[in-house]
Amino acid sequence: MAKEITSREQDYSQWYNDIVLKSGLADYTAVRGCMVIKPHGFALWEIMRDTLDKMFKDTGHVNAYFPLFIPKSFLSKEAAHVEGFAKECAVVTHYRLMNDPNGGGVVVDPDAKLEEELIVRPTSETIIWSTFKTWIQSYRDLPLLINQWANVVRWEMRTRLFLRTAEFLWQEGHTAHATADEAIAETRQMLDIYANFAENYMAMPVVRGVKSANERFAGAVDTYCIEALMQDGKALQAGTSHFLGQNFAKAFDVKFSDKENKLEYVWATSWGASTRLIGALVMAHSDDDGLVLPPKVAPLQVVIVPIYKGDEQLAMISEKANVLAKELRAMGISVKYDNSEHARPGWKFAEYEMKGVPVRVAIGARDLEKNLVEVARRDTKEKMTVPVEGLSSYIKDLLDDIQVSIYNKAKKFQQDHITKADSWEEFMAILDGKAGFVSAHWDGTGETEEKIKELSKATIRCIPLDNPQEEGTCILTGNPSTQRVLFARAY
Amino acid sequence: MAKEITSREQDYSQWYNDIVLKSGLADYTAVRGCMVIKPHGFALWEIMRDTLDKMFKDTGHVNAYFPLFIPKSFLSKEAAHVEGFAKECAVVTHYRLMNDPNGGGVVVDPDAKLEEELIVRPTSETIIWSTFKTWIQSYRDLPLLINQWANVVRWEMRTRLFLRTAEFLWQEGHTAHATADEAIAETRQMLDIYANFAENYMAMPVVRGVKSANERFAGAVDTYCIEALMQDGKALQAGTSHFLGQNFAKAFDVKFSDKENKLEYVWATSWGASTRLIGALVMAHSDDDGLVLPPKVAPLQVVIVPIYKGDEQLAMISEKANVLAKELRAMGISVKYDNSEHARPGWKFAEYEMKGVPVRVAIGARDLEKNLVEVARRDTKEKMTVPVEGLSSYIKDLLDDIQVSIYNKAKKFQQDHITKADSWEEFMAILDGKAGFVSAHWDGTGETEEKIKELSKATIRCIPLDNPQEEGTCILTGNPSTQRVLFARAY
Repeated sequence: MAKEITSREQDYSQWYNDIVLKSGLADYTAVRGCMVIKPHGFALWEIMRDTLDKMFKDTGHVNAYFPLFIPKSFLSKEAAHVEGFAKECAVVTHYRLMNDPNGGGVVVDPDAKLEEELIVRPTSETIIWSTFKTWIQSYRDLPLLINQWANVVRWEMRTRLFLRTAEFLWQEGHTAHATADEAIAETRQMLDIYANFAENYMAMPVVRGVKSANERFAGAVDTYCIEALMQDGKALQAGTSHFLGQNFAKAFDVKFSDKENKLEYVWATSWGASTRLIGALVMAHSDDDGLVLPPKVAPLQVVIVPIYKGDEQLAMISEKANVLAKELRAMGISVKYDNSEHARPGWKFAEYEMKGVPVRVAIGARDLEKNLVEVARRDTKEKMTVPVEGLSSYIKDLLDDIQVSIYNKAKKFQQDHITKADSWEEFMAILDGKAGFVSAHWDGTGETEEKIKELSKATIRCIPLDNPQEEGTCILTGNPSTQRVLFARAY
Repeated sequence: MAKEITSREQDYSQWYNDIVLKSGLADYTAVRGCMVIKPHGFALWEIMRDTLDKMFKDTGHVNAYFPLFIPKSFLSKEAAHVEGFAKECAVVTHYRLMNDPNGGGVVVDPDAKLEEELIVRPTSETIIWSTFKTWIQSYRDLPLLINQWANVVRWEMRTRLFLRTAEFLWQEGHTAHATADEAIAETRQMLDIYANFAENYMAMPVVRGVKSANERFAGAVDTYCIEALMQDGKALQAGTSHFLGQNFAKAFDVKFSDKENKLEYVWATSWGASTRLIGALVMAHSDDDGLVLPPKVAPLQVVIVPIYKGDEQLAMISEKANVLAKELRAMGISVKYDNSEHARPGWKFAEYEMKGVPVRVAIGARDLEKNLVEVARRDTKEKMTVPVEGLSSYIKDLLDDIQVSIYNKAKKFQQDHITKADSWEEFMAILDGKAGFVSAHWDGTGETEEKIKELSKATIRCIPLDNPQEEGTCILTGNPSTQRVLFARAY
């Protein structure tokens, strides 16, 4: 096989890069930290985007589009916010190039300096709240439920395809409400939408929880998150939903007159999920032969490959293949009949395995005489000999089964990787052993959290929702604690 | 009516701004030249985008996503290209902010200067062709048919909502081919797709043509375009499709080995349409009461407004309205039943007229007793009394009729505004009179074209496809000419 990839056991990190590159999801570019999302990766993103978009619209949100640029002074209006983002901002300072009169080629025109520098948005709270000020006057204007699909830039020093890139694609919801309760309910609703999407479409089980103060979004009162587990036992934050309180309303002076005609600051939320999810999807399910995609997000669900000698056999197979393809399409299943002559069946098998196509149907001339075909599922690599009659229904059921199987396998892995630790030694042994989430007592202070991170490279991923209260002592300081929280090393 | 707008006669330019702002399509922002696309405008863009996207995919194109940033040196690799875009580039020079040690607040960190400045993409030929170099080796990799939906930035000095903004949204197709003929065929195919979209969805007739050398895209061998006519007689370029020859392949050294194993430069096209189309749509059809939207691109096609006194009447009307809404939705028609109590019917009528909803159904208690409702069409403002029985089919037919009527009206306007001029005096009289396209002889030189532009503010919009050849003399120089071309003042 031409496209060999490193095994997970050999080098998990290299395995991930190999899959992303060789399955055609993404590629490096000449621009530091910026990737190109290749057609297969973008088709996957389109499905994820459209699925989420429908969920947002079904819950009353509408899309809009705000400027790419944020005046530097806007970013600075919310103190915690600028503190959180200042260190990774791409800054536009000029608006023109010129030919260097000294023969230095094309250079920045020094006369075209902006009066105020513009930041390429790392997130859009500030520009959006400066706009909301003009949109919100009265309680009748609320709730305002806006979402934006956009590119954002965070000048990360260490980047990895999909997981951490200087530019990435995402959606960011920004909502405004008359009461704190309503805003908190929105925050929680959007967390549930993310969890539903992760579990029921990406087949990726998640823990829902709230972040500790140290891990909160810069400018939020509370950050809720979904945390997934990768096959190497590291955690990955797969979506966040923030209750922003009145922080941005106060920073941008956004007030509304309530039913009693009294002026009040507006309550806010924001929530986002990004192309990072593609990285999570790869790492959650894939194997040493390439991508494994849950059928519900797979750009191509079924591939049909003919196995033949000569045109006569091909014609006979093609007839059956085209009927099958038509039946599957009528069921809403995406299918490709790959009768290209440039590659042999074995090469095609490997290629579609690499790309994560959930079901492969191989139609051979000899089998066909007995009205049989070979069906292979990508997730378990099981092969079945199946009668042509009823084949499309069989495949439909198989796709459903694959979706559930992939989830169940990941769920079992997750459950096997949530481990209690009651001492520092246990804590470190788990992290350095099977890893995963470690459920442990912590004294609730930021200092201890920081120290644990320094010593172990593990962070508090979240305090799970509906966390049981339990007396205990902090694994580091021995100070009293009332609940366990989930630690992990994370992407 | 609260939201009065300036009439076209009074001030066409102000009328346009009023409509865009008051119908909720877009708004100004604090960032110079950058707009916010509001929910109604973005819903319109989503329909336009999804319609075009399907056309692209149906012709074999796939989507991908390339970096927002372009290294300065890349932009400079194609000489004509950098010449065309250098004067309007937003330039990123730094990647971090800091707190000013001298108390000046948040400032750009001088130590975080980029080694090479990055340009915010004004268009993506250069970054894409630098990537294509790694994707294309052999004729088997061709054709490569890529499209990207993205934001781009051109630092225009004078901006207008949708028509000319510093940042705008668009799609840019970039394709690579083994032969010039194939690339030219692709260029023409995409021009036809734009024309089909403009005429059959936006109900906006266009002239298909090719640009003169002066008006060509920077880096193209030939630029094809569709040109539409606005109600004030000015032209608007609504989409372009470029045959790039081997210019970018040579600039980025992209070669492929052909079937004879000989290395050849690749042939290229690029083509784009943008949120500018929304501006065109507004100006092509709207009137002094607001937007007029062709049903095929209207985010909301039908609104139902109840006219009632008391809860009993409302209940009776709501029952009928909900049945109608359900029937219409089953036909794939978007519909809203606006039973909100915060506004009276008259206010609602004006509001939905402003927003361009093609059909309004008013259900009154008295009419309903006779099994009648009032149906109003937005384009002609005609009102019909229609039986409840068969109402949904009636509305479906009416929507089709409105689509055709809007197109026919615009087509008639276009035909009435293509005028021949055989002398400079005639030429100027038409431009200063009814305007529109002026069909005139031109001697074919860039100098004359430039001079005509200086004197008249009119540019050559295009040389129409299949233009009849005809002996004549240039309206400015009197030099011999073999064909008429279309001039106009333009947006």
